[in-house]
Amino acid sequence: MKNSLIENLVQQFSRLPSIGGKSAQRLAYHILEKNSELAESLASAIVDARRKIRKCGLCHNYSEADKCSLCLSPGRNPNLICVVERPSDIILIEKFGAFTGLYHVLGGALSPLDGVGPQDLNIDSLLKRLAGLESPEVILALNTSSDGEATGLYLIQKLKPMNVKVTQLARGIPLGSDLQYVDEHTMQRAMEYRIPL
Amino acid sequence: MKNSLIENLVQQFSRLPSIGGKSAQRLAYHILEKNSELAESLASAIVDARRKIRKCGLCHNYSEADKCSLCLSPGRNPNLICVVERPSDIILIEKFGAFTGLYHVLGGALSPLDGVGPQDLNIDSLLKRLAGLESPEVILALNTSSDGEATGLYLIQKLKPMNVKVTQLARGIPLGSDLQYVDEHTMQRAMEYRIPL
Repeated sequence: MKNSLIENLVQQFSRLPSIGGKSAQRLAYHILEKNSELAESLASAIVDARRKIRKCGLCHNYSEADKCSLCLSPGRNPNLICVVERPSDIILIEKFGAFTGLYHVLGGALSPLDGVGPQDLNIDSLLKRLAGLESPEVILALNTSSDGEATGLYLIQKLKPMNVKVTQLARGIPLGSDLQYVDEHTMQRAMEYRIPL
Repeated sequence: MKNSLIENLVQQFSRLPSIGGKSAQRLAYHILEKNSELAESLASAIVDARRKIRKCGLCHNYSEADKCSLCLSPGRNPNLICVVERPSDIILIEKFGAFTGLYHVLGGALSPLDGVGPQDLNIDSLLKRLAGLESPEVILALNTSSDGEATGLYLIQKLKPMNVKVTQLARGIPLGSDLQYVDEHTMQRAMEYRIPL
């Protein structure tokens, strides 16, 4: 029964996030059942992405060139910088299509428990970048986890003395939710930042 | 923003079963964020599996050699043949570890709507295989979908004149289920095949 190549394929798939043993098996058999074009295309997409994609020298987003297409885009405001934890956060914000500034990817959040300090994040390059701008404005779009919040507080401490205007994404009740399911911390923030009508 | 290599990777992942757009994006960014060993291992596992795995000449299971390890196993009863639709079905049955016969993979089920007829399945090779055995017994372990049931009926018609003993997996209430959630067809079968105590 044991088939080492199939088992290896299953095992490699199960290393991916949210792919359990059953899903990994299903993916592996799908690869074997379908025509080989899918297998070749997927394998080469993985290798190509990994080998050719690097980090943008300015904002640390993924890029195929020295600078990413966002940083090179002439229509965007270079004085408005949205700070995010991960490159994937940029996709989410870009989907709305309303943000016209640039980004800065920290590469994570401060996490004393995981040994992630300020030197492990792209904070120095952010400060240097801001120092070269005339009237920079920073929007913090970090996760609302304790690590994300702590990172926001650390950045505010660094940015305030530089006379940088800093804002963060609004906290409150998400749209479309039943108040019954809103947790107490969110409710507390929603009360604190209640909107005058 | 557009990054063709990332987009291609996302698109290739989204061709896999039960991987939607959001999951595909998550997998793609995971590949980029983690060390490149994962990417290389996954890509080569896909290519290796696809290039080196073929079908067993006897039972049509996936195999790295001309005959699969099950068909080559000396401890198994060659007169007892469990007929399944897909190679992945074999894994499920082998997990119980109680079945000591061999398998025959049909490669699907009869499906007039999808244009799958008897000539598209490994039925001729099953009949030839059975003709060479002394007192063969066949266990039909097909899906209980309408296609699977129709395939079972077709096989019974072919096997009965050959004096082959044919059984199929029992139908009834699955273990651990609340009767409230059992559908009417299953309930009807469970009544029909009720077990004398």
